[in-house]
Amino acid sequence: MNDERWLLPAGIDEVLPSEAAELERLRRALLDLYATWGYELVIPPFIDYLESLLTGTGHDLDLKTFKLTDQVSGRLLGVRADMTPQVARIDAHHFRREAPNRLCYLGTVLQTRSDGFAGSRSPMQIGAEIYGHDGVESDVEVLRLLLATLRTAGIDNAYIDLGHVGVFRGLARQAGLDRTQEMALFEALQRKAGAEIELLIGQFDLPADIGAMLLGLADLNGEDALERARTVLSNADAAVQAALARLQAVANETRRWQPELPIHFDLAELRGYTYKTGVVFAAFVPGWGLEIGRGGRYDDIGRVFGRARPAVGFSSDVKGLIALANGASPPADAPGPVLAPWDVDPRLQAVVDALRAGGRCVIRELPGEAPSQTCSERLELVDGQWQLCPCAVPDA
Amino acid sequence: MNDERWLLPAGIDEVLPSEAAELERLRRALLDLYATWGYELVIPPFIDYLESLLTGTGHDLDLKTFKLTDQVSGRLLGVRADMTPQVARIDAHHFRREAPNRLCYLGTVLQTRSDGFAGSRSPMQIGAEIYGHDGVESDVEVLRLLLATLRTAGIDNAYIDLGHVGVFRGLARQAGLDRTQEMALFEALQRKAGAEIELLIGQFDLPADIGAMLLGLADLNGEDALERARTVLSNADAAVQAALARLQAVANETRRWQPELPIHFDLAELRGYTYKTGVVFAAFVPGWGLEIGRGGRYDDIGRVFGRARPAVGFSSDVKGLIALANGASPPADAPGPVLAPWDVDPRLQAVVDALRAGGRCVIRELPGEAPSQTCSERLELVDGQWQLCPCAVPDA
Repeated sequence: MNDERWLLPAGIDEVLPSEAAELERLRRALLDLYATWGYELVIPPFIDYLESLLTGTGHDLDLKTFKLTDQVSGRLLGVRADMTPQVARIDAHHFRREAPNRLCYLGTVLQTRSDGFAGSRSPMQIGAEIYGHDGVESDVEVLRLLLATLRTAGIDNAYIDLGHVGVFRGLARQAGLDRTQEMALFEALQRKAGAEIELLIGQFDLPADIGAMLLGLADLNGEDALERARTVLSNADAAVQAALARLQAVANETRRWQPELPIHFDLAELRGYTYKTGVVFAAFVPGWGLEIGRGGRYDDIGRVFGRARPAVGFSSDVKGLIALANGASPPADAPGPVLAPWDVDPRLQAVVDALRAGGRCVIRELPGEAPSQTCSERLELVDGQWQLCPCAVPDA
Repeated sequence: MNDERWLLPAGIDEVLPSEAAELERLRRALLDLYATWGYELVIPPFIDYLESLLTGTGHDLDLKTFKLTDQVSGRLLGVRADMTPQVARIDAHHFRREAPNRLCYLGTVLQTRSDGFAGSRSPMQIGAEIYGHDGVESDVEVLRLLLATLRTAGIDNAYIDLGHVGVFRGLARQAGLDRTQEMALFEALQRKAGAEIELLIGQFDLPADIGAMLLGLADLNGEDALERARTVLSNADAAVQAALARLQAVANETRRWQPELPIHFDLAELRGYTYKTGVVFAAFVPGWGLEIGRGGRYDDIGRVFGRARPAVGFSSDVKGLIALANGASPPADAPGPVLAPWDVDPRLQAVVDALRAGGRCVIRELPGEAPSQTCSERLELVDGQWQLCPCAVPDA
């Protein structure tokens, strides 16, 4: 029984000092980065009324959300599994700005089932959003900020997957699919299950040209996918053509800013399809199969909170960034702690205060405390002055 | 229905930019303070198996803990309502150090019912602990660190309530009270309900001298309470006398370090009585009825995790500290954001990078973005050089 008390639930971790210091360093660096780009920090609540957490989001988020009963109100609460909808509510409710509003956030989210880094169910989600601008430039700004996020974490070999939910959505509308048919096809498309897609197209009794376009979507990925799309989707309607044009414009503008960035297109990869409305993107590093950051446009997210306006953003997981950047950016060697005797002499306190104000760690030695092997210096009274002296290294 | 989506559960808050920036500033200042005193940061998990969260703690914490079902294991989880037991487990499990171990932590805790600042059910708990030292000095070090915490938050008029759970516990043992009797008397004592205490003493049929001492306890508070205790509790046994002597020693040592600090004794104030084992203290500011920090010694807390060793610590609430310090330490005036045009010119990017590296906020102006009233300067190309120019203030 005692042994069980050590155990943590699957996907839940406790963070020990060296890793916690690393997490805190990156946390500060990222929040400073966002602040210098004009993104203001907001802190959404950890729990919320369930309906307000899930409003406007998909079924998937519902299944990932832990539920609680609020004994004060008797109502159902949820633990946030994704902070994006909460931040949208904050923009819609608290800001009367017509001008673009840049917000960022960072915090632990909890998920009933893992889909994140290394099976974690408690990622430290970080993200940034622009509300109130629907141009190509805000798509590109959040994409650039995601790349800056990765560089800050020591990851400089990322590549980008770029798509647009308007392509499939437009084709589905052109084909006259109902909601059930659309979602069935969407699921098959996510798995790039060609045979299954063909089967569904047959069942839905679609015209040949539309069927061919939906089937062709599964293959429209790679660096040249947009060029091929011009042929494969040439019979698509104006909404699809507009989505393709927007995607091209975002890629062009991204290349103007980041000429060296590898961009893969994927017209069948539709993360967050149920609430996204435009460009969608994800960042990857070679040799790691899962995305390390994702984002896109979801213009309608504020509507359920009474204020629909354009929105685009990204999110990532600070713990995942650290694991993938492992060894990439070791912290500068800090000097070890200083030991100071347990002595109320105000001259000693002045020295201790000055060292601490300069960021140095000074440990007041408790009587009976064994000399720590990690201390590099000790304050000693030499010729009437408190001075830093090298610590004797204790025998191992 | 739409209106309801704005609402937050009672005692749960979302934090908007200006307050979030203040919270982040204080958060960093406190973690830096603890680091320079030699306290290493640990991050306990947000959810945990319920039995491991509640092991060794009181019934009160159980009632304050939100429960969840883990669909992975089928077991009951709890959301942390207090991080202290988790940090004790981390010390017991992960550190093989015999030497004193200094740990600190910071994070949101959730409570089913509020007992904290301004009715909050989601305080941002901060705290520090020393494991492995049972002397007066570690009691005093954590007390001093609590005071340094308050000063860092801009609160320099705190006073301290000091007690020792060994006084009442010793008297209860000397009186031969069973657990039920002890807790009934404890409850009455917390409310300083003299008539009720007298009634209970009568019901328990206690000898007159013990009854008088238990009744006298309710009045043993104030600056001279320790002196009066010598008379009132003169017939108490050795355990009680040892507790009084320890309390005196802690007060004396505290006064050596902080001669100006007002100390009130309260021998009937027994916060965390069920798991505390020695000195208990709380910090107050004049004009605010609730404590703003609390702590004490709880030497046995690691036993259930297989490693009982001395422990003493304190905790506080960062949001409460900010509210009480309101106006006490306004942040230095930072210059407003800089606007830079949406232009890929690498010379402009170099200027933007340099400003951001220096901590300045630079907003890349999105096409169609209205000039922000908060921008103080704008980067403009003047004589072939990108230069900072004053922003025109738009008409109100």
